[in-house]
Amino acid sequence: MTGRAAERRERLRATAAERGLDAVLVTNLLNVRYLTGFTGSNGALLLRTDGGDVFGTDGRYTTQAGTQVPDLELLVDRATVPALAREAVTRGAGRLGYESHEVTVDGHRKLERVLTDAAAGGTVPELVSVARAVEELRAVKDDDEVDALRRACAVADQALAELAADGALRPGRTELEVGRELDARMLALGAEAPSFETIVATGANSAIPHHRPDRTVLAGGDFLKLDFGATVDGYHSDMTRTVVLGHAADWQREVYALVAEAQAAGRAALAVGADVVAVDAASRDVIAAAGHADHFTHGLGHGVGLEIHEAPGIGPLGAGRLAAGMAVTVEPGVYLPGHGGVRIEDTLVVTADAPELLTLTSKELLVL
Amino acid sequence: MTGRAAERRERLRATAAERGLDAVLVTNLLNVRYLTGFTGSNGALLLRTDGGDVFGTDGRYTTQAGTQVPDLELLVDRATVPALAREAVTRGAGRLGYESHEVTVDGHRKLERVLTDAAAGGTVPELVSVARAVEELRAVKDDDEVDALRRACAVADQALAELAADGALRPGRTELEVGRELDARMLALGAEAPSFETIVATGANSAIPHHRPDRTVLAGGDFLKLDFGATVDGYHSDMTRTVVLGHAADWQREVYALVAEAQAAGRAALAVGADVVAVDAASRDVIAAAGHADHFTHGLGHGVGLEIHEAPGIGPLGAGRLAAGMAVTVEPGVYLPGHGGVRIEDTLVVTADAPELLTLTSKELLVL
Repeated sequence: MTGRAAERRERLRATAAERGLDAVLVTNLLNVRYLTGFTGSNGALLLRTDGGDVFGTDGRYTTQAGTQVPDLELLVDRATVPALAREAVTRGAGRLGYESHEVTVDGHRKLERVLTDAAAGGTVPELVSVARAVEELRAVKDDDEVDALRRACAVADQALAELAADGALRPGRTELEVGRELDARMLALGAEAPSFETIVATGANSAIPHHRPDRTVLAGGDFLKLDFGATVDGYHSDMTRTVVLGHAADWQREVYALVAEAQAAGRAALAVGADVVAVDAASRDVIAAAGHADHFTHGLGHGVGLEIHEAPGIGPLGAGRLAAGMAVTVEPGVYLPGHGGVRIEDTLVVTADAPELLTLTSKELLVL
Repeated sequence: MTGRAAERRERLRATAAERGLDAVLVTNLLNVRYLTGFTGSNGALLLRTDGGDVFGTDGRYTTQAGTQVPDLELLVDRATVPALAREAVTRGAGRLGYESHEVTVDGHRKLERVLTDAAAGGTVPELVSVARAVEELRAVKDDDEVDALRRACAVADQALAELAADGALRPGRTELEVGRELDARMLALGAEAPSFETIVATGANSAIPHHRPDRTVLAGGDFLKLDFGATVDGYHSDMTRTVVLGHAADWQREVYALVAEAQAAGRAALAVGADVVAVDAASRDVIAAAGHADHFTHGLGHGVGLEIHEAPGIGPLGAGRLAAGMAVTVEPGVYLPGHGGVRIEDTLVVTADAPELLTLTSKELLVL
């Protein structure tokens, strides 16, 4: 990890140099984890353009920092961010980058005060926004990250396979029971946590894109939509499968086939250099052509990694192009209010060739 | 819930009136949940001092908002916060409170822009910080909240009892296995999630206050420290128990007895009007008198509720006094680096009489 983290810091250092900054104060905890490998709940990084980075945390994490971040100078202080800001002054930073998308108004005010006090009449460093600079780097995954995502997706695949094999997805059970069992299996298979609150939606509930599982009972002939993922080494998998319980009606087969076709079109559009709006359109057009434009009410997908939703966004309002190493979801849906809905979602990695599919569970319409 | 939420909004409305504000824009999602009952992942509240509050969310949550927040005017907009800010202008807010401890520098800049545009040459509302106003209200729990905490603590109690009864806490197992089993049992018992990453620390690891469970194998004669909790209806329980596997050595009994005495002293100090620094000292002094001042390296406790750590903080650097209805932890520890450590933690509610103990698992030294 330390080697990978060092490579990532060099990428940020190049950005800092380009922008004429002397240092960057990284306070977003996930960005700190990305750049250092530190997994505790309090840590910050002072990255200096000329090198000599300082990692800050508090006394609870001294030992952990020694293990996870052995290659950086360590500063232990309960008030971690102010302490690092003072270090920046001591070490002569004139222009200090900070994460303006992350630092609160109160936090910014406090930073200014600390910098002014530390300058003691000398030059006070200028705070310069570097909003989302690290998030931009994070959009492109390195091999370690893809490996973690692969393992996270494998846990989700395996958990669902076990659940289906055990007959747990059957009429008479509640959404809540199914969701809890899926979560428990992911944990037993080595997940740190579910990636997000598992969605289990049956019958008419499946027409609600983000239905929260409740005591609704699974019934024969209904759709059952499962949207879930596992977190492994901090990385999130994301997969949706929709099955039918008992017997599939014609309208269910039609909707399912349409979403499957749209999803395949979305996956086929994942290519280096592809515009995210065009990727969304490749899938959306299939649904629109079938007269269901109004029933696909969200974007096609999003990046996944240390967060369940991260760059790039793939939707009609997105911006930017895909690059090799981006890990994204492709998840079109058709939702018929009051009746039911289908969403099919995979997590994939963009490559110079065909995208690598990480969620391997079959996408054939499963009738259980 | 709607009745409770309405009561809470009246308390905030009184604060807003006192501060001469026309409205408050509440954007912290937990604060929004507290004030409305809404549990989705995107929502904000425009609370107007003269009444006529508006709840905002996006299209994914229209149905859910109708169920959970039926008593408020609903505004559905993908850009929820800007839309509510425009409403504030339309409805003539001159002084608009906002959560400066929560709104980022970029978010504040965007808010200013939206307000200026919406004013269209007219008077632009002034943004006034109301940092932590809702969190202050949240520190004192109402009956519904205490009930949720009680249920969350009961789940944790029950999960640990089952684990012990099944002989799962025995030499040969790893910390990770024990932690995952504890999490799975809490989920099976109805928890939405663990309150935080469950801490399982055995042997020398128990001397690390916030050890992350790893593949360390439980061995006879070792301490086993479990710090965990369950989330129920959004409310977090928090409990630590330390047991000995096999046979307890004299030093282990001594350290345990000391921490148990300090913990009892801390609990006894929980009274309406007590200064949080004095509560901390009541427990800390016991440990210091035994010569272990340096081995108790953190504060005595913290508030719990919709967050695992919230107001009030109970520690040497805290400020303020306890009030009836505050839910707090009392969790002294003695950590002997390289050897082992003990922490004993309860969640309790401050009352006019003795505090109500919510975590009911025995605090006798359990030798398994």
